[in-house]
Amino acid sequence: MPRQILFLGDTSLETAASYLAGCIDHSGWSFDYIPSDQSLELNQLTEPYQLYILSDYPAAHLNEEVENRLVQHVENGSNLLMIGGWESYHGMGGDWDGTKISQLLPVKILSNDDRQNCDSPVFLKAQAEHPITANLPWEDRSPIIGGYNKVTAKTDADVLLTAERFKSKLAGADYSLTHESSDPLLVVSETAKSRIAALMTDLAPHWVGPLVDWGDNRVAAQAPGSEGVEVGNLYAQFVSQLVKWVGKF
Amino acid sequence: MPRQILFLGDTSLETAASYLAGCIDHSGWSFDYIPSDQSLELNQLTEPYQLYILSDYPAAHLNEEVENRLVQHVENGSNLLMIGGWESYHGMGGDWDGTKISQLLPVKILSNDDRQNCDSPVFLKAQAEHPITANLPWEDRSPIIGGYNKVTAKTDADVLLTAERFKSKLAGADYSLTHESSDPLLVVSETAKSRIAALMTDLAPHWVGPLVDWGDNRVAAQAPGSEGVEVGNLYAQFVSQLVKWVGKF
Repeated sequence: MPRQILFLGDTSLETAASYLAGCIDHSGWSFDYIPSDQSLELNQLTEPYQLYILSDYPAAHLNEEVENRLVQHVENGSNLLMIGGWESYHGMGGDWDGTKISQLLPVKILSNDDRQNCDSPVFLKAQAEHPITANLPWEDRSPIIGGYNKVTAKTDADVLLTAERFKSKLAGADYSLTHESSDPLLVVSETAKSRIAALMTDLAPHWVGPLVDWGDNRVAAQAPGSEGVEVGNLYAQFVSQLVKWVGKF
Repeated sequence: MPRQILFLGDTSLETAASYLAGCIDHSGWSFDYIPSDQSLELNQLTEPYQLYILSDYPAAHLNEEVENRLVQHVENGSNLLMIGGWESYHGMGGDWDGTKISQLLPVKILSNDDRQNCDSPVFLKAQAEHPITANLPWEDRSPIIGGYNKVTAKTDADVLLTAERFKSKLAGADYSLTHESSDPLLVVSETAKSRIAALMTDLAPHWVGPLVDWGDNRVAAQAPGSEGVEVGNLYAQFVSQLVKWVGKF
């Protein structure tokens, strides 16, 4: 049985990584963890993981040999998830454009700063039926986020969620929303052997925005060695469905 | 000349406190800092500060003698600002209700969990002309937040901002907003000697929400000993105007 998850990035388990780590643990999966300021070493890839998660982890932390090995693992059946952030995709120091790993992803990464820091509502809109987005109230309780990396979907990929960006304005007693733009927010692809997903927002503050509190009920979670978090139950369900599908759990 | 600012809370200068610390430094003021896990000691209050800022700092970290001294300083002309968060007001471990400091504040604090974690838009609405809220586009570019502490304003206080909470729903191609509630978000009071302000949202993620990116331009700021931050110019202006007014800078 391969090791389950290698989670790289999101600063540290004491800070941003506590969100995804808590949700993974809460779903009953195990993971190894490498913080954003540590390089991935070849000896950590002697055996493949079932799922690699890159979230706010700079491309510069993988040397060529390590990157080749990770790509080889994905080609042989490991699965891959990239999550957005200031050090994901191009970001500000992510610099994944032009890498071999970027060729595996179902999105095209810009070659300059792709960060979208938004001060007015950005709604997540479901674009297709899929196990990741199933049984969640995208229409009746449309969640909003704070920011994302701007990418384009590759032609053979499935866009499951878009980020619908609005300007908001107080007009009399009401707020009016004016549509500004639509960008891919969750894109997936699948080969005979592997599943690959690209989520363009972060799952931790600040880009996760109000999405982290999605739902009426609260979920408390704490992975071993990590800070505890308290999140909305629909957020926890979404993260769980995302990891479950892409990781084939 | 009294010392300028004593800033208590927001975890640490490496994490949440880096936002307010950066904005204070960017405005040219100096501050001393006490992280959320350290008690305030009497010898730190031998001389008064011009402004005390309590943000995510538990009431339990002040013993009776220290709290009395801080109250005395405010009665003698120091100014006071409380900023919202999970360890502010009642919160989850703030427990400021029933304290002597709470009697100085212009809001009434609940005696149970007052945290409002919101997954749909909460707009900040200006209710009065005031130096803190001046020259900011509250109507034309209404900012949104992720959460706040629910309080009520005392009768003799001035409510400058409210939090207007909406439910959002996708209806056809548009999102509709349904008003849910209105709560005080920024309340101030002034005596002959002191200014006191209560801001119910946080100035750091996650409750600050998209407000942290308010504005078209970006401001990079970094206080000595702190992480650097990059925020929206209108957020930086708002924080600066808040600290300037309440601290009489």
